[in-house]
Amino acid sequence: MQAAVIAIHGGAGTITRAAMDAAREREYIEALQHVLQAGQRILADGGSALDAVTEAVRLLEECPLFNAGKGAVLTHAGTYELDAAVMDGATRDAGAVACVTRLRNPVLAARAVLDHSEHVLFAGAGAEAFAQAQGLELVPPGYYFTQARHDQWQRARGNTGMALLDHDAAALAAQQPQGTDPLDADSKFGTVGAVACDSRGNLAAATSTGGVTNKQVGRVGDTPLIGAGCYADDMAAVSATGTGEMFIRTVAAHDVAAQMRYAGLPLEEAARRVVMEKLPAIGGRGGLIAVDRAGNVTLPFNTEGMYRGVARVGEAVNVSIYG
Amino acid sequence: MQAAVIAIHGGAGTITRAAMDAAREREYIEALQHVLQAGQRILADGGSALDAVTEAVRLLEECPLFNAGKGAVLTHAGTYELDAAVMDGATRDAGAVACVTRLRNPVLAARAVLDHSEHVLFAGAGAEAFAQAQGLELVPPGYYFTQARHDQWQRARGNTGMALLDHDAAALAAQQPQGTDPLDADSKFGTVGAVACDSRGNLAAATSTGGVTNKQVGRVGDTPLIGAGCYADDMAAVSATGTGEMFIRTVAAHDVAAQMRYAGLPLEEAARRVVMEKLPAIGGRGGLIAVDRAGNVTLPFNTEGMYRGVARVGEAVNVSIYG
Repeated sequence: MQAAVIAIHGGAGTITRAAMDAAREREYIEALQHVLQAGQRILADGGSALDAVTEAVRLLEECPLFNAGKGAVLTHAGTYELDAAVMDGATRDAGAVACVTRLRNPVLAARAVLDHSEHVLFAGAGAEAFAQAQGLELVPPGYYFTQARHDQWQRARGNTGMALLDHDAAALAAQQPQGTDPLDADSKFGTVGAVACDSRGNLAAATSTGGVTNKQVGRVGDTPLIGAGCYADDMAAVSATGTGEMFIRTVAAHDVAAQMRYAGLPLEEAARRVVMEKLPAIGGRGGLIAVDRAGNVTLPFNTEGMYRGVARVGEAVNVSIYG
Repeated sequence: MQAAVIAIHGGAGTITRAAMDAAREREYIEALQHVLQAGQRILADGGSALDAVTEAVRLLEECPLFNAGKGAVLTHAGTYELDAAVMDGATRDAGAVACVTRLRNPVLAARAVLDHSEHVLFAGAGAEAFAQAQGLELVPPGYYFTQARHDQWQRARGNTGMALLDHDAAALAAQQPQGTDPLDADSKFGTVGAVACDSRGNLAAATSTGGVTNKQVGRVGDTPLIGAGCYADDMAAVSATGTGEMFIRTVAAHDVAAQMRYAGLPLEEAARRVVMEKLPAIGGRGGLIAVDRAGNVTLPFNTEGMYRGVARVGEAVNVSIYG
């Protein structure tokens, strides 16, 4: 019997102790603990890695602190466009949706694609039609609204007229009122995700995002792309967060598993090379979480911080924010 | 100085000599030769692999014989939704568009994303808005129309109400009038693509498709997904065609390069394992074309045939259809 484990992330970026007040830090820690405990419970009850990561990401989408589902960032047009993916390492079945605007839980739509479609990826209105036919909940765009994301969007538009970029971090930090989101005002890596190894040694990964603040309409990042921001096979399950385009160009999540399979690298070293060498070589910033069939977990990031946590069945959950 | 080379494909599937009349065969061969000569000319003049594959795929989109651009297949709704991607192995820059409905040449939009955007992938109306801002040509949906694809769509709707599937091949072949498309009436793998190695040893890949006949609206296959249906780095450039979902789940194009980089496999063996072992293991059918920095080319497929060809600078072009 495998020691089952789940790991989650809530985005990576310029998260520093200096910018975080104690109450806000507490909120994030409690939210991450709550999600981990739910995933841990599924695994403890003999549930599958696939079910555990789906539920963990659903809860992260429900939490307005993170940039997925409720709390998603706004596009340049002031709209919401969400992406999500899920993959089952045992079968390599996968499902994903991109540019959806009316689904309460994009990860449940991705899961429905995995379970009930011959296809892997649906975009836009077609994705919503599929999800609706599967009985999933539609919401009006106002559902995703949070004042913090709206303020952040207005700052991004005012500052750059473009997607919120890292080099604007200092300027934006100076404008930022106390008590608002300490991650996304400074960076754009607010994706959420989960990876798990269940008691049968099967792996799964799920990732969900609102994308980049003030992004151009129609931009799709790495999150819904199998092999880029989400991937699982019998070597590793991987969920990524960061400058999505660089994760696409390096096929980052698949590259972790490929280095293990073909070069014989252990999980931690394969993930380290992607996050600390390959991504920085093309200007990529962010991190990833990964698990292998032995239950090893690694959570590397090349930013100041990453909201993250690990929960092994039968052990206390372990949550971290800073580097 | 590198011996520059370009390879192209026009889709793989149930292409048999028995189903092909001589005049139709001649049309395909001449079309493939014409495209290869254009790519060969660019490489002979010292042009980049990136320019050669972009132009080759643009010409394949212009040709109504192939399922990309003019001649694209129809969705279940009777509409057209096209996908394309391009990747430069020298820089790992990439561009892609998905679910576009009004662009004459999706591959030129993908190239514009590569050249002029911080992003990699745009979907739907956002992709069209970007392409229009870049001065690319928009067309009315009727531009893509061909009688053969329309008839094929009506047969698929009548037969299955779903995407045209392989196991319907026999039934459909019986209904098919002489002289119509010998590939797509029997299968659904009509993607086009090109890979090249230029005189500097740089690699590039491009892929474009109309997708699957009678597909659900919003379905995105492997074509516009970097690492799945299109990929290039300093090991290999790869363009794929086939049952797109299986190419996504195996991250097929990146897996060729990964086996070369990490397991030290030669190009041909890496591609063979993907097409002849990994894809069939999950029911995947189709093929791919790939080139490495030494100018080696391989064009494996696990179907009856694949429209394909290779042109080395200074040599005659070489075109094939059957296995």
